[in-house]
Amino acid sequence: MTTTGGGEPPARRRRGRPGYDQETILRTAVELFNRRGYDATSMGDLAKELGLTKPAIYHHVAGKEQLLSLALDDALDELTAVVAEASRERAGTTAHERLREVVRRSVEVLVAHQPSVTLLLRVRGNSPVELAALERRRWLDDRLAALVADAVKEGALRDDVPPALVSRLLFGMVNSLVEWYRADGAYDTATVAETITTMAFDGLARHGFQAS
Amino acid sequence: MTTTGGGEPPARRRRGRPGYDQETILRTAVELFNRRGYDATSMGDLAKELGLTKPAIYHHVAGKEQLLSLALDDALDELTAVVAEASRERAGTTAHERLREVVRRSVEVLVAHQPSVTLLLRVRGNSPVELAALERRRWLDDRLAALVADAVKEGALRDDVPPALVSRLLFGMVNSLVEWYRADGAYDTATVAETITTMAFDGLARHGFQAS
Repeated sequence: MTTTGGGEPPARRRRGRPGYDQETILRTAVELFNRRGYDATSMGDLAKELGLTKPAIYHHVAGKEQLLSLALDDALDELTAVVAEASRERAGTTAHERLREVVRRSVEVLVAHQPSVTLLLRVRGNSPVELAALERRRWLDDRLAALVADAVKEGALRDDVPPALVSRLLFGMVNSLVEWYRADGAYDTATVAETITTMAFDGLARHGFQAS
Repeated sequence: MTTTGGGEPPARRRRGRPGYDQETILRTAVELFNRRGYDATSMGDLAKELGLTKPAIYHHVAGKEQLLSLALDDALDELTAVVAEASRERAGTTAHERLREVVRRSVEVLVAHQPSVTLLLRVRGNSPVELAALERRRWLDDRLAALVADAVKEGALRDDVPPALVSRLLFGMVNSLVEWYRADGAYDTATVAETITTMAFDGLARHGFQAS
């Protein structure tokens, strides 16, 4: 398991030179992978970017693939927690409410973990680590599609659009954030989440469709 | 200019061995760039994939950057035509109608030119060719944001959400198609376009917002 949330990294990561713990190396690696592409980035490039020797990096991490794996787990652990919570049926909540909540919390995760989610969304399945990440992404997609279908079944959402397609498009809209969102930009997380839910659900809710 | 639409490639491309014209090389190159990343793909990789020697490829194209440039122009020429048309004010059409139309036609372009649009959406600005493509993308984004703002001004769309953010999210949803859409999959182009416009515009149209 990797560190989730904004808390202190576990003590086992606190090795080596101060300022160059695994967390710092991981952050720089992910930034480099996103900028240049994972396959095009070498451990030599990473060493140069950090101003370290390669052996100094290998003191902290086993290699490039471990860095990829840690970054993908960071994104996937957060998203899995959010989706698992939303998928759990609870007395007094509807699927519709849980779907709105998972959109809002997904936006928060994407903003708080933007670099690792960006990396996750670009994974193509070129290695066992990438294939495992795609498998975990598929689980998320399936749970979200089931949640949309439940919200349709309970009568909260319109039934004249395919739920699986709606789920793809809704979370496609959420995921598109990673490409342009800047935390210091014009919109805070709450505004983005509110705009997405307003666009999507006011459209999906049962009411007369306004023809153009 | 590159070939647009599904017509015959211009005669100037019909050079060299039959079956290995520039069009074929370009198609394979784009597929390889999308699978492995542009920076990680060499002309040697491309030669191997095509079963050609490197000199045979250089008979048709100047190099890797020319292939990137041709692919990005293919995507950008199509999208620019669609957005320019939608941006032109015409008697008897509203901004709202033109916005719905540009969503529908963008979906068609993304499906018909999925490989080159996928490549375009991954461009990071790592070279003059990539920076020029980002400049053209910015023009598209600006025109689309202006169109959303016009539709708000004419009273067709709700005014309690930021138009520039709505534009980002709407075309983020459209662009997300390239990551999962398969022409031989469950949904045809018309269904996807209809679902996107239903989700987005029924949400954006002025009517009572249904609280959860």
